[in-house]
Amino acid sequence: MYQCSETNKTRETFCDIYFEMSLKKILLGTVFLRNRYIGLSSVSTITDKKYRFDESEGFLFRTKGKILTAAVFSSVLIGAAVNEQIKDKNVKSQSNDVVIEAGEKLPDLPTYTAEEVSKHGDKNSFWVTYKHGVYDVTKFLPSHPGGEQIMNAGGLSIEPFWNVYGMHKTPEIYKLLESYRIGNLHDDDVIDHSDDELWVKEPVRDNRLIVKTAKPFNAEIPAKYQIKFFDTPNELFYVRQHMPVPELDADDHRLKVTVKGSKIRTEEFSLRDLDKFRRVTTRAALMCAGNRRSEMNEVKPVKGIGWMGGAISNAVWGGVYLRDVLLYSGVDPEDTKGKHVIFTGADIDATGVNFSTSIPLDMAMNPSSGILLATTMNGHPLPPDHGRPLRVVVPGAPAVRSVKWLQSITVSEDESPSHWHQKDYRAFNPSKTWETADFATAPPVYSLPVTSAICDPADGDVISVKNGAVQVRGYAYSGGGAKIVRVDVSADGGRSWWEARELQADAAPPQQHYGWTLWTASVPVATQQKEVELWAKATDSNFNTQPERFNDIWNIRGILSNAYHRIKIKLVH
Amino acid sequence: MYQCSETNKTRETFCDIYFEMSLKKILLGTVFLRNRYIGLSSVSTITDKKYRFDESEGFLFRTKGKILTAAVFSSVLIGAAVNEQIKDKNVKSQSNDVVIEAGEKLPDLPTYTAEEVSKHGDKNSFWVTYKHGVYDVTKFLPSHPGGEQIMNAGGLSIEPFWNVYGMHKTPEIYKLLESYRIGNLHDDDVIDHSDDELWVKEPVRDNRLIVKTAKPFNAEIPAKYQIKFFDTPNELFYVRQHMPVPELDADDHRLKVTVKGSKIRTEEFSLRDLDKFRRVTTRAALMCAGNRRSEMNEVKPVKGIGWMGGAISNAVWGGVYLRDVLLYSGVDPEDTKGKHVIFTGADIDATGVNFSTSIPLDMAMNPSSGILLATTMNGHPLPPDHGRPLRVVVPGAPAVRSVKWLQSITVSEDESPSHWHQKDYRAFNPSKTWETADFATAPPVYSLPVTSAICDPADGDVISVKNGAVQVRGYAYSGGGAKIVRVDVSADGGRSWWEARELQADAAPPQQHYGWTLWTASVPVATQQKEVELWAKATDSNFNTQPERFNDIWNIRGILSNAYHRIKIKLVH
Repeated sequence: MYQCSETNKTRETFCDIYFEMSLKKILLGTVFLRNRYIGLSSVSTITDKKYRFDESEGFLFRTKGKILTAAVFSSVLIGAAVNEQIKDKNVKSQSNDVVIEAGEKLPDLPTYTAEEVSKHGDKNSFWVTYKHGVYDVTKFLPSHPGGEQIMNAGGLSIEPFWNVYGMHKTPEIYKLLESYRIGNLHDDDVIDHSDDELWVKEPVRDNRLIVKTAKPFNAEIPAKYQIKFFDTPNELFYVRQHMPVPELDADDHRLKVTVKGSKIRTEEFSLRDLDKFRRVTTRAALMCAGNRRSEMNEVKPVKGIGWMGGAISNAVWGGVYLRDVLLYSGVDPEDTKGKHVIFTGADIDATGVNFSTSIPLDMAMNPSSGILLATTMNGHPLPPDHGRPLRVVVPGAPAVRSVKWLQSITVSEDESPSHWHQKDYRAFNPSKTWETADFATAPPVYSLPVTSAICDPADGDVISVKNGAVQVRGYAYSGGGAKIVRVDVSADGGRSWWEARELQADAAPPQQHYGWTLWTASVPVATQQKEVELWAKATDSNFNTQPERFNDIWNIRGILSNAYHRIKIKLVH
Repeated sequence: MYQCSETNKTRETFCDIYFEMSLKKILLGTVFLRNRYIGLSSVSTITDKKYRFDESEGFLFRTKGKILTAAVFSSVLIGAAVNEQIKDKNVKSQSNDVVIEAGEKLPDLPTYTAEEVSKHGDKNSFWVTYKHGVYDVTKFLPSHPGGEQIMNAGGLSIEPFWNVYGMHKTPEIYKLLESYRIGNLHDDDVIDHSDDELWVKEPVRDNRLIVKTAKPFNAEIPAKYQIKFFDTPNELFYVRQHMPVPELDADDHRLKVTVKGSKIRTEEFSLRDLDKFRRVTTRAALMCAGNRRSEMNEVKPVKGIGWMGGAISNAVWGGVYLRDVLLYSGVDPEDTKGKHVIFTGADIDATGVNFSTSIPLDMAMNPSSGILLATTMNGHPLPPDHGRPLRVVVPGAPAVRSVKWLQSITVSEDESPSHWHQKDYRAFNPSKTWETADFATAPPVYSLPVTSAICDPADGDVISVKNGAVQVRGYAYSGGGAKIVRVDVSADGGRSWWEARELQADAAPPQQHYGWTLWTASVPVATQQKEVELWAKATDSNFNTQPERFNDIWNIRGILSNAYHRIKIKLVH
């Protein structure tokens, strides 16, 4: 019994925490208020709940039949909440009940030159500009979802950064920014930072993808297409970008491999050079570590793209083994302990830093891990969105390790120093906050836990019962080479579990199994049942299973969100 | 909220199922009744509950301060229940309110000769004898916990079998047997099957071990010794035997390796021959797949030894790589797919069949899997209880695969045909019963999921709070080479989680990490708290975590019992 009451208490605790939040955390607070309003007040009555993602927000909404837009939220809910919280702060900007555009010139404020602003670029005094606005965001620094990245903008305009990290461009963040307004930037120093040129070369995308953020482009594959194809067609493969897509020429592309040992040795490979290694293909699903984050977000808000279950797809990758290239480049297979392989892509952030992350050299050199330098995807050259002309594919790992547009590999004593490696894709227990989480000591995620999702029916569907049962289909996957050995579905809250009869998977060995598994289960339902909640859980070849609920795996970043998938459907007999 | 009520409904369903059981399942029924009586009626009041194992029963009892013996149970609880259930069946034996010895001659029953009995040895009519008793157990066959093994005793005395499988020798099973009594065996055919000679050569054991069954010998290591030593001293390493311990001479011992391919090739190795391969050491914990079964048994009874958390220990094993020996013996490393390696030990069951199980050849040939043919344990020759002079050590797998007293290895297209391989160590979902479980299609368990246990304090301990916190120590482990990356402890039902600060583990690479991890956590408690329930859960390098509860991982055999470990302690401030 106590588990339930603990759950409630946990929710209450969350409420308290969030209501106690200072102004510096308004953004999170409003998200939570929204969640609480929609979630808690209607959870007992909504039976046909639908998920709908509002692109401009970056968060998932639960609605009751109708779609509540960001504007409605902003004016009705968030507006009120923000209004309440900031009314006693000396905000010199607009009223809070209209959606504002930040950075307008305001007559009553002092004017600063760019030179003056540039003197305020450290943690003691941290100013930024946006269009005509000057902002002192010193007190906001510890709460920045992107962590230390913000430090790059100290004393400067934040526009070039927000052009790369387009998720900032929301009414809430504009409003939050304005709450820190202290002045106007001198007219002579206001520069047009419009982002046209950065994004003009983005590839054309399939309009069946569900767009989560436009710039950078992040989009998931609809559930119905996940189960339609065992190997996902390239144009439907989910897309996760951190920055604009670089445009690279396959003929000119060079891969630099540097091995730091007693002396530093560097090799350079054209794609033609790489072809001299034995060519292989590997079937591997790639999954974002944040897949299914939207479900964890319902327990308590987390930071990150609100992926539903569509941040995973499956493909056959063609290329050469990373191990072979590393051996050729001088890596001693007996001297791997404690070393790392840093992958760097051609995609560049607003400060000119290339995307980069690393994996342990042990992992790279293990023949079972099957890591590829891939040039093809399902038999075709890599599409631009998936790393053309060369990417790493690290099977079983979070897809972030499978660096796209690969331009260099460095074998080093150290992990990648990049923000993406040091300050993201690490896990914490549910009690760690952004203030207490120590990224330096938290282990990077190099392998993903077992997960599954129901793809058909969808949450809220009305299903005709045939022969006393409903057919349920979905995917399951486990990282680290583990194979899915069983998928169980319950339609009665765990009292009975029905094993999926059909598991579609390839024949790779159990601990070297990197593809996903599609499954079909027939789940009996009683004739009096008008509505059921379906639960799915998978078991992998290590006999790990999914946790029941998200509460105890909740983490600030919303990754590794692998509790049971639960949907409600209506039945027609 | 619904999760709780589902839990209750699940319990009620279990009750119904068990109360509906037919006479053939009295044994299970009585066990459940006992569990229900002790468990459900007192779960809310017992705060200082202690676990005590009654050896003659083979099940775990929960008592409130005093020890309830098997005799008390038999006469008070089980006796009454059995009495109730069998009163309308035509049982021709003793009254049910006294503990009986089976097989006494009963004057009112017909007499059969051994020859007559021997005609009833198939599933249509299945008779066995025990001392003077003749029994028609045809209807019991589907319910036999040991599955098909019972068929070997068709038309014969079951005494030689029970001498090997000593767990049958309990008052309940004698009573169950007598419920099938149909006659007396002719005096001339009654043979003395006393078991003295079988067990006379058993090794001397350390009396600190907690004995679960005497014949065969199964004993767990007390929790306090688990955390006292990172590598468990040989004499405290838990012991799991299926049969009597064979006595083998290291000098004369031979290992036969047979590789079945286009032609059959056999090599024979003395221990001295094996020394010619490179000698290596590997640190690996071995854990019974049934470790922590007693906790799963509290949800609903399962079949098997009632291990608490002591069926896991850690050691450094010395020997040679199985892979090297297989390569030498003619295994083609490129032709492993779908093949198996069958290990056969020198321990023999009542029918003369040697213990045997198998693993996939892929697993055996994978250099990362580090499987040994071991001759030493923590630097000493293997003790008799641990396989002297030669055993397999399959790191990360259920210990059953690490066959002791190894005398032959066969590379084959097929898995081991043995009962232990085909009818045990396979997993099912909670809805599968002994009647519906299909062992043929269920995947064998070759790797273990993440688990942990609190070793200190023990359940029911009274602990002095120091500096507002209690120190909690335990072990954590994950199979398949996964490393433990985090252990979290909660003292408030999951509202807050405290990360263990000290993780003691060796430095093996993440996916080749086979030792266990010892941990220490400091868990704050409020001054007003007089009692807390501690929860422990571990996370491994694939970021799999333990399931919250046993309900949804329950399985008929009680294996893979890895939900959160929960204990209650009293606090003194």
